[in-house]
Amino acid sequence: MSGSAVPAAVNIAAKLSQFSELWSQKTVAVLNDYEVKLAKLKGEFVWHTHEDTDELFLVISGRLTIQLREGDVVLEPGELFVVPRGVEHCPVADEETAILLFEPSGTINTGDAGGSMTKAAETLN
Amino acid sequence: MSGSAVPAAVNIAAKLSQFSELWSQKTVAVLNDYEVKLAKLKGEFVWHTHEDTDELFLVISGRLTIQLREGDVVLEPGELFVVPRGVEHCPVADEETAILLFEPSGTINTGDAGGSMTKAAETLN
Repeated sequence: MSGSAVPAAVNIAAKLSQFSELWSQKTVAVLNDYEVKLAKLKGEFVWHTHEDTDELFLVISGRLTIQLREGDVVLEPGELFVVPRGVEHCPVADEETAILLFEPSGTINTGDAGGSMTKAAETLN
Repeated sequence: MSGSAVPAAVNIAAKLSQFSELWSQKTVAVLNDYEVKLAKLKGEFVWHTHEDTDELFLVISGRLTIQLREGDVVLEPGELFVVPRGVEHCPVADEETAILLFEPSGTINTGDAGGSMTKAAETLN
């Protein structure tokens, strides 16, 4: 109804309610050449490395374990962790877990590993 | 006690409990040449512009109004907004509000405006 050009805030919970697919990254905001993405996880991903970028995980709900070769980092809601570039990691979630990711646009979810879980991020409007 | 080199997660609430100063950005994580910062706000900031970068605000608690010349964007907890580069803005919070910021390292809080509220981010260990 309004012709206002004032942009809207992004409500994380509302965005999460728009999809149920697991292991599928949804872009909800863009900052310079970086993207804020949401994803729902359950089970174990694949071990992989991003050689060119760090990767930020912030847990919204559930519980995420980021397996590193040196040990596990466990993230509860409201906790974040940056996996440094070049560090092999494998996310795993025993229960369905919602996360926010922050990383450069075009970062591939499976990094150097490839395989059947490789999937480009989709924009969620 | 442990010699483990496994790095720890960043708990946002715990980090927020470590400081009470208003309008002072605390760096809690670094991602490539970007920083995750926390801040506590109350009252009105200064109108300013970042000519070289977008700036992400995510509200953790309280309520933030980002005044733009074209209107207000109101952020509740769990909501985020990206102020595009070159867009003049002025944050204001009626109650004490905790936010997470994401932007390039070295971004000055007051942008082009300068003045007495200008302050470099400090690393929060």
